[in-house]
Amino acid sequence: MSETIFALSNGYIGIRGGFEERMGGNESRSIDGIYLNGFYESVPIPHAETGYGYALNTQTMLNVTNSKLIELYLEGEQFNLTRGTIIEYKRFLDMKNGCLHRNLVWRSPEGREVEIKARRVVPFAHRHLVAFEYRVKALNFSGKVIISSYLDGAVENHVHEEDDPRFSAALGGLGLKVKRIIADEEPVIMLQETQRSKLTLVCAMDHSLKDGPGAVKEISRDDHSVAVNYYFDLNEGETVGLEKYASYYTSLDYQVADLAGLASEMVTRGRAIGFNVLLEEQQGHLEKLWETASFGIDGDTALDQALRFNIFHLFQAAGSNGRTGIGAKGLTSEGYDGHYFWDTEIYMIPFYAAIMPEEARKLLEYRYSILDSARERARVLDHPRGALYAWRTIAGEEGSSYYPAGTAQYHINAAVAYAINKYIEMTGDYSLVLEFGAEIIFETARLWKDLGAYIQRKGNRFCYNEVTGPDEYTALVNNNFYTNLMAQWHLDYAYETACNLRDNYPDQYKRLAEKIDLDQKELQAWKQAADDMFIPFDGDLQIHPQDDGFLDKEPWDFAGTPSERYPLLLHYHPLVIYRYQVCKQPDVILAHFLLNDRFSLDQKCRDYNYYEPITTHDSSLSPSIFGVMASELGFYEDARWFFDLSARLDLDNCLKDTHFGVHMANMAGSWMNLVYGFAGMRTTGGSLSFKPYLPEGWKGYRFGVRFKGSRLKVEIKGREAVYSLSDGEPLSFQHRDKEIFLAGGEKVVLSLD
Amino acid sequence: MSETIFALSNGYIGIRGGFEERMGGNESRSIDGIYLNGFYESVPIPHAETGYGYALNTQTMLNVTNSKLIELYLEGEQFNLTRGTIIEYKRFLDMKNGCLHRNLVWRSPEGREVEIKARRVVPFAHRHLVAFEYRVKALNFSGKVIISSYLDGAVENHVHEEDDPRFSAALGGLGLKVKRIIADEEPVIMLQETQRSKLTLVCAMDHSLKDGPGAVKEISRDDHSVAVNYYFDLNEGETVGLEKYASYYTSLDYQVADLAGLASEMVTRGRAIGFNVLLEEQQGHLEKLWETASFGIDGDTALDQALRFNIFHLFQAAGSNGRTGIGAKGLTSEGYDGHYFWDTEIYMIPFYAAIMPEEARKLLEYRYSILDSARERARVLDHPRGALYAWRTIAGEEGSSYYPAGTAQYHINAAVAYAINKYIEMTGDYSLVLEFGAEIIFETARLWKDLGAYIQRKGNRFCYNEVTGPDEYTALVNNNFYTNLMAQWHLDYAYETACNLRDNYPDQYKRLAEKIDLDQKELQAWKQAADDMFIPFDGDLQIHPQDDGFLDKEPWDFAGTPSERYPLLLHYHPLVIYRYQVCKQPDVILAHFLLNDRFSLDQKCRDYNYYEPITTHDSSLSPSIFGVMASELGFYEDARWFFDLSARLDLDNCLKDTHFGVHMANMAGSWMNLVYGFAGMRTTGGSLSFKPYLPEGWKGYRFGVRFKGSRLKVEIKGREAVYSLSDGEPLSFQHRDKEIFLAGGEKVVLSLD
Repeated sequence: MSETIFALSNGYIGIRGGFEERMGGNESRSIDGIYLNGFYESVPIPHAETGYGYALNTQTMLNVTNSKLIELYLEGEQFNLTRGTIIEYKRFLDMKNGCLHRNLVWRSPEGREVEIKARRVVPFAHRHLVAFEYRVKALNFSGKVIISSYLDGAVENHVHEEDDPRFSAALGGLGLKVKRIIADEEPVIMLQETQRSKLTLVCAMDHSLKDGPGAVKEISRDDHSVAVNYYFDLNEGETVGLEKYASYYTSLDYQVADLAGLASEMVTRGRAIGFNVLLEEQQGHLEKLWETASFGIDGDTALDQALRFNIFHLFQAAGSNGRTGIGAKGLTSEGYDGHYFWDTEIYMIPFYAAIMPEEARKLLEYRYSILDSARERARVLDHPRGALYAWRTIAGEEGSSYYPAGTAQYHINAAVAYAINKYIEMTGDYSLVLEFGAEIIFETARLWKDLGAYIQRKGNRFCYNEVTGPDEYTALVNNNFYTNLMAQWHLDYAYETACNLRDNYPDQYKRLAEKIDLDQKELQAWKQAADDMFIPFDGDLQIHPQDDGFLDKEPWDFAGTPSERYPLLLHYHPLVIYRYQVCKQPDVILAHFLLNDRFSLDQKCRDYNYYEPITTHDSSLSPSIFGVMASELGFYEDARWFFDLSARLDLDNCLKDTHFGVHMANMAGSWMNLVYGFAGMRTTGGSLSFKPYLPEGWKGYRFGVRFKGSRLKVEIKGREAVYSLSDGEPLSFQHRDKEIFLAGGEKVVLSLD
Repeated sequence: MSETIFALSNGYIGIRGGFEERMGGNESRSIDGIYLNGFYESVPIPHAETGYGYALNTQTMLNVTNSKLIELYLEGEQFNLTRGTIIEYKRFLDMKNGCLHRNLVWRSPEGREVEIKARRVVPFAHRHLVAFEYRVKALNFSGKVIISSYLDGAVENHVHEEDDPRFSAALGGLGLKVKRIIADEEPVIMLQETQRSKLTLVCAMDHSLKDGPGAVKEISRDDHSVAVNYYFDLNEGETVGLEKYASYYTSLDYQVADLAGLASEMVTRGRAIGFNVLLEEQQGHLEKLWETASFGIDGDTALDQALRFNIFHLFQAAGSNGRTGIGAKGLTSEGYDGHYFWDTEIYMIPFYAAIMPEEARKLLEYRYSILDSARERARVLDHPRGALYAWRTIAGEEGSSYYPAGTAQYHINAAVAYAINKYIEMTGDYSLVLEFGAEIIFETARLWKDLGAYIQRKGNRFCYNEVTGPDEYTALVNNNFYTNLMAQWHLDYAYETACNLRDNYPDQYKRLAEKIDLDQKELQAWKQAADDMFIPFDGDLQIHPQDDGFLDKEPWDFAGTPSERYPLLLHYHPLVIYRYQVCKQPDVILAHFLLNDRFSLDQKCRDYNYYEPITTHDSSLSPSIFGVMASELGFYEDARWFFDLSARLDLDNCLKDTHFGVHMANMAGSWMNLVYGFAGMRTTGGSLSFKPYLPEGWKGYRFGVRFKGSRLKVEIKGREAVYSLSDGEPLSFQHRDKEIFLAGGEKVVLSLD
């Protein structure tokens, strides 16, 4: 698990927090890995009983060339933490500069004592570079010391856990193969290739020796690895320090012929910059982000730490180049095959739009880059027009092998449109719509029009049958509330966007309308379908049923369910789970959060009180949303409980699956829990508002957001809220019912009461 | 396809109708195979995304030792139909004696002409034996002729068609391995073993030389095959005749150590009996069956032939030993992995109960033999008591990898209970209930009680949620009409059976009640659940909706569906199919057929008129049932259309998949179509009745049934029905509304009007 917690990433390269040296001993508990965002193998999906239109391949993020490996020999004794004696040991992550430290003192079985200080950093400023520092001090002996630094190409993805669908599909023997090693001199270079998709990866490494006595250097290699070996004569009390630079380039971004040159240049440059300067650069980059996020909780160190940790991972995951997204686990492990899901849009983009809007934009560009795949997928699903995004994918192809909780979740289309709107609400950057956003919005809206139907027996309303909503403990239902509501919003939004373009950007509109064959009649049909949308409501209970049949099911027997049978999905057949009223995560409640102004507080309250008790929160997507809504409804105890769970979900391994990687969506959710929950931020219709309160036991908390070019800091202290604006654009917003106007550099102090 | 049509079987051994010699040339169109009922390999199911309780293994019927192989050499030229010239060729199946003939005259590339007459029979009287006769006449040459007769152990199941879920799961490399060959003298013996389940199979062969000049015999072998080679000096005009006997025994039925001896004895005995006597025996056996079935259509040769063919295959498939059933394809090919489904009970047992009641009993004994597996499966599905039969299986374990159209079809439990009742209605043999039937009925009824729930919003009626009915174009629904109705019937039947046992067979009841922990309270709960069952009915349309949500779906666009996109399952994603009102096969209509007295003619008519137009009949289970109901409702054109389709489904390869094997259930269905449809036979409550009519264009038709020990023949001629009873028990029945009583040997002639 700590390999996940200590994972570093710059959004392109991700490296788990394992040791530099091989684990030794029982390796079953270790998942070692280095990953490149967007770099995958296409693996055939074995359908025991196949069906028309089933996903044929899944794209699996590959564990790439191991550049982390460094081995140490003391007079022939190999350093290995599973042998000898650990006298001192400390591993820590410095979230100010993104540096992972490991300091230890070890006594070998034969009594030699060494101090080892290892550091590593994955520079944001150099996306293709990773840098290691490895310092060894002989404490009680003098003698021959060897440090061998490797590129190891014998990498595999880790075997999936057979009974757990959440981890990863079997890659079988489809790992990277070593094609060539160039090892005449440094930088040494390893060229690897994927077996099916024939993508090429080049990894180079270079070294720089700091401190210590002169060394003899020798390069060795075998079929699948190459090492640079340093031979020292070390005296007691002396230290050697080795800096190692590794670089990754792939044929996804560059010509195969250029890869070796690029990687070689990169490590040479890294070496020239040096480890300490890289760290300084990294700190500079992070300082700006921390300044924007301006985060703190006063009065609860554990939660302050937890949320900083989550925000740090969000910083680390950001690095989209417009052709890559952010996986459910970021680049911290192989869980879910490294796939991108809808939660990037619904959970993460609100964070990025508020802190790193350029990242939010890139993530949406990525969706545009796979729009053609989404169009193809729609055709397979028999829709003559429009686009349907893959439920899980890397390069666009649907990779979900269990369609009832995969492809049936059509609501991913609305998630993408919603995120575009959220981005525009937060940034005011309408150019995104003009450049590519409109095409996404329209093509995905078309799917909604084609998927639904006017159903006579439903008062001739527009209905969606045979869909799955966000809650995965119910599948293949008619009129899922969330789906219908989001489709309605999406169709309206597409109509309004089209009208706006038509009236205000006629040239762009004309070009796009011609490209995708869009006419006024189709726009009207969208509007009409939205107007006529069937929205499930139960008159007796005065709640929104999750779907047409939901209330006709028996309640789950929570009292008779022992705690060890959670999460339910690992302990009950889907036929059992689906038969009952039981939710894995928010569905109606998520719709309340996303389309907050559509429902009265009373209505939200009734729905919350109905669904919260039947929700297991077995999904990491659950607590943050319930937390935000609990805050809005004044259920402060609930709100706090959900916030605590969401904040420390990975640090405390609450779901017992952090070894599969951190839960990126929840990490962003925990930030929303504070900003949208405790501080009551909303951006509906592009208007910023806050309804902050102070959770019991805290002295205060603070956060920053970027909004339409302005940088606002919000600080809650005791019974007061302090809003301060950086120099720049003035900003209007609401504090509770009060309209506030702040000019650049101004600050206002307002009462919470 | 003709390899399926010409397949022979005795219910234990099945042999496809391929040539004795190797096919030669392009073998892709040939599926060669010999199968043993119940003999399988257990193959892991590859779930790309697994889930709790998913079926882990599927049992695949294995292609076994090829004992059919005979090769012929004429002066060194190998006989092969893909080379040289075919001068005459005829293959025909004699349904009177079960003999497959192939007569041909062939000219070799070098001009040698031979006449070959090959015959084979799979004796009903000797379940472990198969016999071949191979006669060769030199027409225009004299010279050296070699006949090599093989046991070939290099057998594999055929690669499944990737895009067609109906054929077979991939067996991968898990075919039989040759363990030992004993070839010192005849009979030669080959011992093979399954790789995972370690089942042993022994095949022996022996020969007898008839006619022709003396031959030199030599036995040859390699790692995976053994041959007996005969060397002749044949003169122009001379004939050689070889009889070949092969026998199969497996460790499923006998001790491994005994297998070789048993097989060896069997072939020796076969040889002693001789091919012609075996044929006579076979004819004797079949004569009795044909006499019982007493079938004929006067005025339509094609349909007469077709139905005879179907009945012949039903005769051939019968051979259950109480531990085996009848696969969906019988033993005619590898389709559906040789699995047994619910259609044995619903479609085939009515035929066997009427013609071969001992076979019907054995098939139900088979269900008892796997009751423990059904109990285990119920536990996995979280039912603390009761039993749930596997949707598809050989030895009892659930082998369905797509649970929405597999395990979710809980109605298989009712099918088994229904078949027990059908058997008792037809035979009066209540001993089956006392010996084992009651235990099945009760254990499967328990599942119904535990699966359903009283749902407040459904008028506090007893409901079934998240189930799939027989129609596989709709899945995972609430309150499937068929399921609820059959569960109601089953619970009632279980209650009545228990009361009857309690009152009339108190000792047996006491023993069973103790064994399965059954008390009066549980019986009452069954009765109560049946009384309170929710039966979907739509007041507006005055029809029974197929399920709660069915009528809320859009009708399928039949007008816009080109004929080449049928069957829909091969051309549309399930999400598309499930979204519409479209049926693959009868669901409501099947319930009408099975529980015929529960509904008024008007009601059945309205339901028929609603469902027939939206049913694609993509399932072979469809036409026969619609045909019977069309007859009952007086839709004579429909009835005839369905009958014709059902009768000639395999002979004319109407579904384009006969190469995967014949459609056993439809074959029995086509018989029902005549007997239950045209002749209107019913056995409800154990009372026999007929409402016969004569289809337009026919002069007459006839059939026989066994009923409670009597043998009744029914003949429709012009406007009259003739009922004649064999010697034996007298019989009461209804003809239309008239009560008829026939004593043994009597006959009555009644008007159809």
